Amino acid sequence: MASAWLLPEHIADVLPSQARRIEELRRELLDMARTYGCELVMPPMLEHLDSLLSGTGQALDLKTFKLVDQLSGRSLGLRADTTPQVARIDAHLLNRAGVTRLCYCGPVLHTRAEGLTATREPLQFGVEIYGHAGLEADLEAQELAIDAMQRAGLTRLVLDLGDARLVRGVLGDHALSEDRLNALVAAMAAKDAAGVAAFSNELPDDVVAALQTLLRLYGGVEVLADARRALPANALVTAALDDLDWLIHHLRASYPDVRIGVDLADLPGFGYYSGVRFALYAEGGTDAVLRGGRYDEVGAVFGRRRPAVGFSLDLKTLVGLIPATSLRAAVRAPWGEDPDLRAAVRRLREQGETVVCVLPGHDQENDEFECDRELVQAGGQWVLRSL
Amino acid sequence: MASAWLLPEHIADVLPSQARRIEELRRELLDMARTYGCELVMPPMLEHLDSLLSGTGQALDLKTFKLVDQLSGRSLGLRADTTPQVARIDAHLLNRAGVTRLCYCGPVLHTRAEGLTATREPLQFGVEIYGHAGLEADLEAQELAIDAMQRAGLTRLVLDLGDARLVRGVLGDHALSEDRLNALVAAMAAKDAAGVAAFSNELPDDVVAALQTLLRLYGGVEVLADARRALPANALVTAALDDLDWLIHHLRASYPDVRIGVDLADLPGFGYYSGVRFALYAEGGTDAVLRGGRYDEVGAVFGRRRPAVGFSLDLKTLVGLIPATSLRAAVRAPWGEDPDLRAAVRRLREQGETVVCVLPGHDQENDEFECDRELVQAGGQWVLRSL
Repeated sequence: MASAWLLPEHIADVLPSQARRIEELRRELLDMARTYGCELVMPPMLEHLDSLLSGTGQALDLKTFKLVDQLSGRSLGLRADTTPQVARIDAHLLNRAGVTRLCYCGPVLHTRAEGLTATREPLQFGVEIYGHAGLEADLEAQELAIDAMQRAGLTRLVLDLGDARLVRGVLGDHALSEDRLNALVAAMAAKDAAGVAAFSNELPDDVVAALQTLLRLYGGVEVLADARRALPANALVTAALDDLDWLIHHLRASYPDVRIGVDLADLPGFGYYSGVRFALYAEGGTDAVLRGGRYDEVGAVFGRRRPAVGFSLDLKTLVGLIPATSLRAAVRAPWGEDPDLRAAVRRLREQGETVVCVLPGHDQENDEFECDRELVQAGGQWVLRSL
Repeated sequence: MASAWLLPEHIADVLPSQARRIEELRRELLDMARTYGCELVMPPMLEHLDSLLSGTGQALDLKTFKLVDQLSGRSLGLRADTTPQVARIDAHLLNRAGVTRLCYCGPVLHTRAEGLTATREPLQFGVEIYGHAGLEADLEAQELAIDAMQRAGLTRLVLDLGDARLVRGVLGDHALSEDRLNALVAAMAAKDAAGVAAFSNELPDDVVAALQTLLRLYGGVEVLADARRALPANALVTAALDDLDWLIHHLRASYPDVRIGVDLADLPGFGYYSGVRFALYAEGGTDAVLRGGRYDEVGAVFGRRRPAVGFSLDLKTLVGLIPATSLRAAVRAPWGEDPDLRAAVRRLREQGETVVCVLPGHDQENDEFECDRELVQAGGQWVLRSL
């Protein structure tokens, strides 16, 4: 019996105080996305495995729980990321010609946690903008991300920028096997110069030198000028640096209080992003609260190669970074058959008040809600009295 | 490739117009539960199978998707019903002495659909009141259920009442095997007199006759008086009929516009409910929108036998019964670098307006939002103009 209520590792209940705050955040983020013209979609938790993993790579495959559908005998997957599902919806269900802005919020499940304290059941919120290849869509996604985090109550935000095209530009025509490329990208993200040297040893010296240079290109926005001097000025590299310059110029104008950092070697989701990628940090935080970027290829497996830019975050992580808010105080009311009492309770609830009726025999119990007022009878009427 | 975007049977995406309405309903129902003093909890999608299925019976077992946890090698289940999880939270995590009111809203997954058009991924909303054995808790759950459905926009509600104690009272000390009892209960729910006769043929004649009488005891509230005359007046039967009388008396006073029906042979979840059970129908509907009742044994497997009453519903079903509401009209704005334009867009969004920026090159596209106003420059200022 002892084990019946032990939850699996990295799986937890969310209890009332935290759940209420997550629900408030959920509404704030969805409402913020709506003001940008994002429409809400709700893809299912379960899909055919081949649809769920189309073009997403090995990392997501390993993270995805698999099941067999007893109706069809086919393999199903529990979504580990909502982004490919939203791309499928854009490509096939909506199938619009123009710009489509979508948002979503729901659980995803991971076979393994991403860190020692990470949950295997994040509550993923995200936004995707399809159909516009220009930087205006990147800017809009980044502005929405910043607005949403500020609305959620995060202060002293740091926006970190990079671009997947830089490594591709530095590598140029020199092909690496997929395994080797992944190892190289991981070593770069870890600022592991020895690893970068090892995994790039079959490349020409100038490419190896440029990769090592990339490793050092992180810091403030001045890094972009360094990059122009130090990296080969080919088309991909130049486009990436120009785009980063443009975005930083516009973001500084709109958000003078957001610190902007650049890390040209940090490439999470390298196989996925096709252009500028970004991450938001709460100052002092070591993990990004939110990650996003441009991934123009995401709909290609569904037969529709649409420009796409977006971001996502885990609400269960976000809520831990935000100061707790106190619960709005409630009204305590006695239980009774008096129609006037029942009408008074009803009226208060219609006004949005929480009215906790003390059921018969329970008047000595502590309220779970903080009640600051009480419904009492005075002069033949039911009135509120402070507690 | 053709199959990559076909979803499994009874699994569907929820597209924008429906998703928005579901999100609105979700908020309305959670807010309504809060005004009754319900605290929100978020149990996980995944649990150890033995915890998830403790004491819940075979029906839920068959409905539950099973997985293996690669971290522990143990069997996991995807929740097919949130109620047992909330009982576990009440019993172990909160472990309070007094009345605890909880609510939840999240997806559940079923291996098989419950009907030809049913989804295998309902979005379950529910409420549970623990710790009060008296009828006041039953009444509160029913009132909250009615208020919530009226707030959601259902009109001409029918509340259907029954009580699990009646069949038990009629059977008295006569034991039936579990299989036979389940078959009997199913035959009664289907008003299948021949089935009832077949599955009760080993019982004494007076019990068989009383079971056949129960079959005919459905209709308006006058059925209760018939039941008092026709059923054996033992303690269980009398308690059930007294409780139904008390509840009907109070519900009629508070909700004169809700029609009350009685069906004493309808016993969904017979093994689960321990007292009064209820269901809400939209008039003309053949399936209940919401089902609930008293199940005092629900926490027993977690070592805590607490009185409990509650209900749940599927938001994806509910939304189909409610007239569509139109989307709030949006504002169309040009994209531009003018700081005044950007500030005007931002101000409108802060006021809660949806502002759809027309990204460069997309001005000939149809808006997905209905825009009834446009942000235009006039006399050096950005102002709203009707469209």
